[in-house]
Amino acid sequence: MKQSLLVTKTRKVISSQETSINAQLLERAGYIAKLMAGVYTYLPLGLRVLSRIESIVREAMNSLEAQEILMPALQPKDPWEVTGRWDKVDILYKIKVGDRDLCLGPTHEEIVTPLIGGYIHSYKDLPRAVYQIQTKFRNEARPKSGLLRGREFRMKDLYSFHTSEADLHEYYEKVREVYMTIFKRCGLGDITYYTYASGGMFTKYSHEFQTVAPLGEDTIFVCESCLIAVNQEIRADQPVCPNCSSSELVERTSIEVGNIFALLSRFTEPFNVEYSNQENTQQSVLMGCYGLGTSRLMGAIVEVLHDEKGIVWPVEIAPFSIHLISLSRKPETQIRAQELYDLLVNGGFEVLFDERIDCSAGEKFADADLMGIPFRLVFSEKTAAVDSVEFKGRTQSESSLIILSSLVEFLRNQIVAQK
Amino acid sequence: MKQSLLVTKTRKVISSQETSINAQLLERAGYIAKLMAGVYTYLPLGLRVLSRIESIVREAMNSLEAQEILMPALQPKDPWEVTGRWDKVDILYKIKVGDRDLCLGPTHEEIVTPLIGGYIHSYKDLPRAVYQIQTKFRNEARPKSGLLRGREFRMKDLYSFHTSEADLHEYYEKVREVYMTIFKRCGLGDITYYTYASGGMFTKYSHEFQTVAPLGEDTIFVCESCLIAVNQEIRADQPVCPNCSSSELVERTSIEVGNIFALLSRFTEPFNVEYSNQENTQQSVLMGCYGLGTSRLMGAIVEVLHDEKGIVWPVEIAPFSIHLISLSRKPETQIRAQELYDLLVNGGFEVLFDERIDCSAGEKFADADLMGIPFRLVFSEKTAAVDSVEFKGRTQSESSLIILSSLVEFLRNQIVAQK
Repeated sequence: MKQSLLVTKTRKVISSQETSINAQLLERAGYIAKLMAGVYTYLPLGLRVLSRIESIVREAMNSLEAQEILMPALQPKDPWEVTGRWDKVDILYKIKVGDRDLCLGPTHEEIVTPLIGGYIHSYKDLPRAVYQIQTKFRNEARPKSGLLRGREFRMKDLYSFHTSEADLHEYYEKVREVYMTIFKRCGLGDITYYTYASGGMFTKYSHEFQTVAPLGEDTIFVCESCLIAVNQEIRADQPVCPNCSSSELVERTSIEVGNIFALLSRFTEPFNVEYSNQENTQQSVLMGCYGLGTSRLMGAIVEVLHDEKGIVWPVEIAPFSIHLISLSRKPETQIRAQELYDLLVNGGFEVLFDERIDCSAGEKFADADLMGIPFRLVFSEKTAAVDSVEFKGRTQSESSLIILSSLVEFLRNQIVAQK
Repeated sequence: MKQSLLVTKTRKVISSQETSINAQLLERAGYIAKLMAGVYTYLPLGLRVLSRIESIVREAMNSLEAQEILMPALQPKDPWEVTGRWDKVDILYKIKVGDRDLCLGPTHEEIVTPLIGGYIHSYKDLPRAVYQIQTKFRNEARPKSGLLRGREFRMKDLYSFHTSEADLHEYYEKVREVYMTIFKRCGLGDITYYTYASGGMFTKYSHEFQTVAPLGEDTIFVCESCLIAVNQEIRADQPVCPNCSSSELVERTSIEVGNIFALLSRFTEPFNVEYSNQENTQQSVLMGCYGLGTSRLMGAIVEVLHDEKGIVWPVEIAPFSIHLISLSRKPETQIRAQELYDLLVNGGFEVLFDERIDCSAGEKFADADLMGIPFRLVFSEKTAAVDSVEFKGRTQSESSLIILSSLVEFLRNQIVAQK
């Protein structure tokens, strides 16, 4: 895409209310725009990133044989009364329409349990799993962390249904593995810890995925060798690594990027979701639920992967893989820059082409660093004269000259190496 | 996908409150589930259809050089007061949070105008167009038409920004053409009319795309030769075909599947969205907006494309292109049915494989007709004996025997022929 046609422009200054790193960088670079506290528009570059993250998550869910659905955001009060959560969940947005009470879904146990329960009759109908990737709403008291804590946000929620705790446990462990592949592909694999935590609203225990970040809201105690951590909230009960029993746990601040719960019969009992087993006895279906905020993950990635100049996107989720900058002044070199762009696009690369003629080289480089596309190519009169282009990875300080005839192969190798 | 693993099952009977054909068929076949009036879950089959429609729409929008964004559903009161619509739009869901008034977006002029306006400074920044495919909310008084009139629904909204009426008009005409390609690909090309209508909230005139349907809510007067119509609401002002001036217009009931408006400066003036022209004078940016309800389109397709047995999906939006039914009783034939399924999947076909062993042939055929997948294959002991499979298009009454060795090529030709 040609940068001159992009509807957004980068900004030097944004609202001083945005104190989080992720909101500052994403807004300045034109990825998101704030409508009000905790509520953002995803602009063209930002939606590209979000969609890539959601594609990675979708692929992971499909590998778990989960079936994608889309449940409503508008929910009636009744099922929330069945579970006793209408008055307990304080972040519910409630809407009064005439004498009818509605709310906006912050989570979907109240909807998915009777819905899928309606299709479950016997043990032959189990196990099953469904998920959705959807916009959710939470009336957060003071949202001030950009995409990390939104009032309207994107989330993947997966729900699984089982005959036995053993079967639930087996699926739970598969989800755990698949979650780690998601965080790896998003560039957070080495710093994301499987974390033992309290069960919150649901169960005694749960597990979180915590990404270590200097300004994270949570505190965890990590076992470096196991990539496992214990949330501060259960530190007293669990002073050692649950895997290797080491007591040498290191305190870290972190961002929760996912959480999984063994709900057991917490929701199936109130909704009477039962199955008949092989002896024809009715039993409660057991459930697990598995959350992952896709917009929060986008924010977490920026919190961790940036430098003083801007964002550093991992190649799998960058809005484009190549940022081609033309510094050509002469029309004939501009034509060659355009030909180079066409060559790359036809070669299957996703390229942002900065062909703006009213911008200085310094402005273009600053924009490129801020936007954080992994590979930068600079084409100028100087490089054109030697049939080359200057290449620089986003985190490299020195660029190198690549001869045009070998460029496509060179770039393919670079991209593969970073995946 | 194996039908035995699908989370949904077909139903013979659904709530008697669902009087519309689209809701009856889609619910019985397991495409959607009603949560409350006008609010539905898209189940795995239904989300596949909706996603295909939205992919077709996305492709069409990208061909118009429009850039995809995602704006919030939660909106503050302020911009609605700027345009004077807070009290005028009676379908707004309003939410009171403390002393703050919010609403759920039924449309996004109030958000997109200042948002994109903030990036427009000079004539060089124009034209621009952005769109989103998003969940919208309308507090409809009596939603009773299934997906045709939802309280929560999916919609594509496109907004374009121009320097002049001529430029807006040119883009408007391009959108018109692109809309017709969408309806063609969705199987409604021959019965969807470009319709002259009143401007509603916005302007004096607008244009609608109306699909002729026996139970449609709207009445239009169509010129068969021009594929153009006049909405009853402006019939007095426009008694003849606006294209050929023929007065032989035929009265039809129809469903509105899209509408486009030349907003001009209706929204840019209140928000002071101006650009400086080549003489450096400030002028109002002119806007167009172009709506298309993707979930409504799904409902409209079912209203029109069905028979007494069930849905008849066009091949481009069907959840699967092939419904493979195995009637095998013997284990060795079941293995051959599985091999046939693998062959088709490896051949790149999307196949729903009805391998259920606890269902009669009659039940399987009835389910297949209800679900409406375009091509049905039946594999049984009888066809296995002659290395063949029975093929039947959804609307054909007779099946034909296809030899397995030529099946893949035969199916490819069938699919191409229907596109």
